[in-house]
Amino acid sequence: MPEFLKVLPPAEALRRFLEALPREPSIETERVSTAEALGRVLADSVAAPHPLPPFPRTTVDGYAVRAADTFGASPSLPAYLSVAGEVVMGRRAEIALNRGQAALVHTGGMIPSGADAVVMAEDCQQARQHEIEVLKPVSVGQNVLQTGEDVKAGELVLERGTILRSQEIGGLMALGVVEIGAFRQPRVAILSTGDEVVPPESEPAPGQIRDVNTYTLSALVSGAGGVPVRAGIIPDGIDALLEAATRAHQTSDMIIVTAGSSVSARDVTADVIQRLGRPGVLVHGVSIKPGKPTILAVASGKPIIGLPGNPVSAWIVAGLFLTPLIRRLQGVTGPLLTPTLRARLSTNVPSEAGREDYVPVRLEVTPAGLVAEPVYGRSNLIFTLVRADGLVVIPPATTGLDAGAEVEVRLI
Amino acid sequence: MPEFLKVLPPAEALRRFLEALPREPSIETERVSTAEALGRVLADSVAAPHPLPPFPRTTVDGYAVRAADTFGASPSLPAYLSVAGEVVMGRRAEIALNRGQAALVHTGGMIPSGADAVVMAEDCQQARQHEIEVLKPVSVGQNVLQTGEDVKAGELVLERGTILRSQEIGGLMALGVVEIGAFRQPRVAILSTGDEVVPPESEPAPGQIRDVNTYTLSALVSGAGGVPVRAGIIPDGIDALLEAATRAHQTSDMIIVTAGSSVSARDVTADVIQRLGRPGVLVHGVSIKPGKPTILAVASGKPIIGLPGNPVSAWIVAGLFLTPLIRRLQGVTGPLLTPTLRARLSTNVPSEAGREDYVPVRLEVTPAGLVAEPVYGRSNLIFTLVRADGLVVIPPATTGLDAGAEVEVRLI
Repeated sequence: MPEFLKVLPPAEALRRFLEALPREPSIETERVSTAEALGRVLADSVAAPHPLPPFPRTTVDGYAVRAADTFGASPSLPAYLSVAGEVVMGRRAEIALNRGQAALVHTGGMIPSGADAVVMAEDCQQARQHEIEVLKPVSVGQNVLQTGEDVKAGELVLERGTILRSQEIGGLMALGVVEIGAFRQPRVAILSTGDEVVPPESEPAPGQIRDVNTYTLSALVSGAGGVPVRAGIIPDGIDALLEAATRAHQTSDMIIVTAGSSVSARDVTADVIQRLGRPGVLVHGVSIKPGKPTILAVASGKPIIGLPGNPVSAWIVAGLFLTPLIRRLQGVTGPLLTPTLRARLSTNVPSEAGREDYVPVRLEVTPAGLVAEPVYGRSNLIFTLVRADGLVVIPPATTGLDAGAEVEVRLI
Repeated sequence: MPEFLKVLPPAEALRRFLEALPREPSIETERVSTAEALGRVLADSVAAPHPLPPFPRTTVDGYAVRAADTFGASPSLPAYLSVAGEVVMGRRAEIALNRGQAALVHTGGMIPSGADAVVMAEDCQQARQHEIEVLKPVSVGQNVLQTGEDVKAGELVLERGTILRSQEIGGLMALGVVEIGAFRQPRVAILSTGDEVVPPESEPAPGQIRDVNTYTLSALVSGAGGVPVRAGIIPDGIDALLEAATRAHQTSDMIIVTAGSSVSARDVTADVIQRLGRPGVLVHGVSIKPGKPTILAVASGKPIIGLPGNPVSAWIVAGLFLTPLIRRLQGVTGPLLTPTLRARLSTNVPSEAGREDYVPVRLEVTPAGLVAEPVYGRSNLIFTLVRADGLVVIPPATTGLDAGAEVEVRLI
């Protein structure tokens, strides 16, 4: 392995990781029904085939009018307008208004030609049959959505690389775009290694433990928008791992290997990754706790993460890198924003300077606000994470935080 | 409708809504593979069938020893121990250590009987064949995970009503619980009403618009852990809506109706909901903008939300109530915590006192931190939400916020 590899802070490690990946996604695209596309990433930009709204609409119940006919109207001196008819919902407005005329309209209905504003129903009253008194003036355009006010015809409304949220799905439907081109969801192969590891459904003999990492990591991959591919439990030793990793590299878009946590197991993982393709191992060691013995690599355009075998370390490191990588493989740009909750620490939390500490915490709602109570437990203990609601990150420049300190908690 | 109905603040409206629902979920349960149970809610509490770890394990590579044999050891005066053998990974530790003996162990391996601590490999050196020098003392229990240190046999590890995150799935797998009882995901029927509304795949005639709400709401329901049931577009008028709502009430666990936004359409919705069962309409009007004309009801134990027809109003109100309701239907307790990002407003934002304003914002990453730029657009314009990254809530007690004010942004 090159000499310059050293322990890096996580942000710098991620930067190097992303830099070594191709800018343009190499993943194929597929046609997807827009209605089922929540969380998918657009492969083609979308331009509006027509304006939205496609015709002028009223935003209130009332009377479509020429605004000029209402100027100066008041309860003491109403404007009298003759009612030329009603605009039926879902139909073209057949009426054409002349001066002194009004048309009854319902919210969302089409504005008839000749009208340029709508008087709210509560600002009118019936004078005679087919005549109303307008008690309040309206200005031109008042209570009217103009054609194209939301989107103009031909406007670029969604760019390639956009993650589709509920609102993008709605916007596409409004434009009649009921099918889209989307990047295939990245397949993430998960390899769990170790002679002591057995499948969860089996009864472990003394000295054996059940596989946890395959399932925690699968769930994290699903949550991050990828498709987990469970590649099974790989025995210790270079041959079995090389064979499994080579197969995973051919059939998946990304690989996660949970190396055994022993020094020799980690060395084997790095060796195997190095043989899969160029540029190979980029980072060997990240300055975080837990999770320091992490390997980040790219082989022929595909990211590979070598994780410690401890379930808590593996989970925390995967949580840092999975989402940015899965997004990047689908060409998503823009910063990844992580919302947090503010809380006060219930107790002192010591930390070593020079590394980021990820401390699992329980949150308690109190009258004085949220209190974050550290959940202590070694990184081998998966129930440490079960007992936690969030993580507090202790920055590398500090040697810990005091009880009562305000912290930002990432929900987990 | 009863006289006492009035416009309520959203938190109070939600409280009344939840209070009117049965405490115990009436929804059926089903068996689910734990590996596929991300986001599902446990219907039965889980106790540990055995301790975790099930045997004492070393957390480091090194030598299992009797701690007493290392007391006072130092580089100048090492403790000499004879190596009785190696504990093979995944096998029972067959060795039983006597005084003055050590056994080679690898991280995660079983501690042999007679040993009570592990010396790290780097604190030992080979003396002769089958003999090591220990250069540093260890205390009893050092570098050892004790049997049951994570979870004791019989311990209640997960309570009924727990939402399964990746870590709970891992914890269940560690215990060999590969199948669980889960509440069925609530079916949420979505009824989109209006004579002007046509399906997205059709070509709207003048005066018609495509259905947006069915699809934005479906995506919100999926995101909140429910199963959307698209009940179709219902024409205006009480008969069609009553028929569709009655069918939805029989076959779903919850109903959302997007009423036309006209006053008469809203009245029809309230009338229909009132006929579905007791106690009926609880809240008619919520003091938020947009979204004031919201109806919250419970009919025979099933929640019903009547939303304004405007896509932005419908989306914002659904976002407030859907998640707490879907959780409640599955018996999830505990507060719903909403993480946020801190940002500074780019401009003044006016607001009326006495209501909560939900202002869509775009977020920009600047050297001075995040800046929130309001996205203005009327609540009829779905692309207002497409252009936004988050929502800023202006509290009811203020009359707006100034440019530069720190705000909390909920990502959307």
